Amino acid sequence: MVGNTIHSIEQNKLPEEFKIITIDSLEDVANSISTMIIRGAPAIGAMGVFGLAQAIHNMDKPNEEKIIKVRDILFKTRPTAYDLQHGLDYVMSKILSESDPDAIKRIARDSAQSYVDASAEACRKIGVYGDTLIKDGDKLLTHCNAGALATVDYGTALSPMRIAHENGKNIFVFVDETRPRLQGAKLTAFELHQEGINHAVIADNAAGFYMARGEVDMVITGTDRVAANGDVANKIGTYEKAVVAHENGIPVYIAAPISTIDFTCPTGNDIPIEERDENEVLDVNGLRVASQGSSALNPAFDVTPAKYITGIITEQGIFNPGELKKINQGGDSDIG
Amino acid sequence: MVGNTIHSIEQNKLPEEFKIITIDSLEDVANSISTMIIRGAPAIGAMGVFGLAQAIHNMDKPNEEKIIKVRDILFKTRPTAYDLQHGLDYVMSKILSESDPDAIKRIARDSAQSYVDASAEACRKIGVYGDTLIKDGDKLLTHCNAGALATVDYGTALSPMRIAHENGKNIFVFVDETRPRLQGAKLTAFELHQEGINHAVIADNAAGFYMARGEVDMVITGTDRVAANGDVANKIGTYEKAVVAHENGIPVYIAAPISTIDFTCPTGNDIPIEERDENEVLDVNGLRVASQGSSALNPAFDVTPAKYITGIITEQGIFNPGELKKINQGGDSDIG
Repeated sequence: MVGNTIHSIEQNKLPEEFKIITIDSLEDVANSISTMIIRGAPAIGAMGVFGLAQAIHNMDKPNEEKIIKVRDILFKTRPTAYDLQHGLDYVMSKILSESDPDAIKRIARDSAQSYVDASAEACRKIGVYGDTLIKDGDKLLTHCNAGALATVDYGTALSPMRIAHENGKNIFVFVDETRPRLQGAKLTAFELHQEGINHAVIADNAAGFYMARGEVDMVITGTDRVAANGDVANKIGTYEKAVVAHENGIPVYIAAPISTIDFTCPTGNDIPIEERDENEVLDVNGLRVASQGSSALNPAFDVTPAKYITGIITEQGIFNPGELKKINQGGDSDIG
Repeated sequence: MVGNTIHSIEQNKLPEEFKIITIDSLEDVANSISTMIIRGAPAIGAMGVFGLAQAIHNMDKPNEEKIIKVRDILFKTRPTAYDLQHGLDYVMSKILSESDPDAIKRIARDSAQSYVDASAEACRKIGVYGDTLIKDGDKLLTHCNAGALATVDYGTALSPMRIAHENGKNIFVFVDETRPRLQGAKLTAFELHQEGINHAVIADNAAGFYMARGEVDMVITGTDRVAANGDVANKIGTYEKAVVAHENGIPVYIAAPISTIDFTCPTGNDIPIEERDENEVLDVNGLRVASQGSSALNPAFDVTPAKYITGIITEQGIFNPGELKKINQGGDSDIG
């Protein structure tokens, strides 16, 4: 956020084009999230809080009614990522006791910035903790994109890989291409190539093949929401990978800031799952690939039950999914 | 085969274009298989035997040395589908005791035709047996294309669905799009639409989502080779679907003519797995979708261990994968 303008990478143009989008209105903020110009749970959270601060700045006389209306518009842009709600709640909690319009504008902006700074720091710490799990020579598998693009910096799932690589460990990453939107082939591959980390893109169907051959040492993904019981919602297909990894004795780690854990959500069954447009499946890069006359179903996320998850890597350390209650929700960071 | 010319649907043009290709040379036969103009285990077998008969017809004086050379060229076009070897062996067994050139030509052609006719009849019977497993209202899931296009008629995995539909059962089919080559979205969806069978294309990643929700009653796929112990090689991703189905208590059936069972192959570990060009993953319909600078790995098949398979539907009935030895290899058909 520079002045009152939000700058962000236009993710749906990558990897073909690296373009920075400038966003000046609430409508554009909401549109950037719902159309996935900005995607990835922590990045959605960051766009949400900046969008809220920007809208408040642009109000004639900000008051509770107007602010809640904006919050609701932003909240509805995508249903599954909990960071969005968490971030909006955080900023709201800082401003709702204020009545002076200028103070509200200033506090909204400052709290949005501190939320985003804390989110970046959380991702770095996730990398430091996650790195302790990775041995020299390990082959990792990841699904979708939980890298710098999906967050504010470092990424979640890619943060341990980055830190391991920086620490001189020789690693290799199997990158699930992640249909339907191909965030693995487009974004994760792009990031790993930029960082010089060895990797290969595979069809999502091939993950099990390499697991069964003993060629995958660990699965690490991000998540859009963790329920209180340790169930994890993430990009469609994560559930399949976790089940097959579990069947092959391969550890499955989920990398997420505490802000992605929804302690008010008892189980994965309570996490809303977004259904997206069927054309994301029927088309690739805007060109029809499926047979004409057929329709598609397109759930964007699935839920992986806690029993398939070895650990959740957070900025406070690595937790067994069954012991999330041990986490200090006050946190050691401003967004805890 | 009309006269000495082979006619076949050009499958890699579907669903955009329905085109019949005419094939007059050994080079074109081999090329049609290796580039997947013709694909699907039984269809590959049919093309192989017709190609062998055609090449023998075109020989000046067919003899064992020349015929074995042709056989070897055809055999090497694709390594995983056992029907190819089985069909070639069948025709070879009929001609190698002959020495009269005209008799060799006639017998090669007749035995190729009877092999293909028996293959079509086997597929029809697979449908009749498979139909007994399907209840009115069932929701089925299939992977890749094992329909009429992959065989000579009826298909293998799609044959029970066709017969159930003909018998008035109301069924619904989840069609895995089947990356990287999208045979599900392109070919299976095309066939089901033609037949008026209710279906929806899904990203391969979404199969587990619907299984976990209890919305899949049965998985039916084809196979490229069944080992003697009941392990099954099929299109990449079949293994993942079978493991996740098994985890959810969903029966997994493999539909295959006896000609796809390789009784000389002890286990799935002994089945050769084809690795195909990385551009099948990096590109879609010839357009690059993955990030530049990244490479891909592209195993075309995987092996599903027998323990995940409920039954193998053949033209002799439905067998537990552990009891394939009960099958009459002499068979009740000419290609048994």
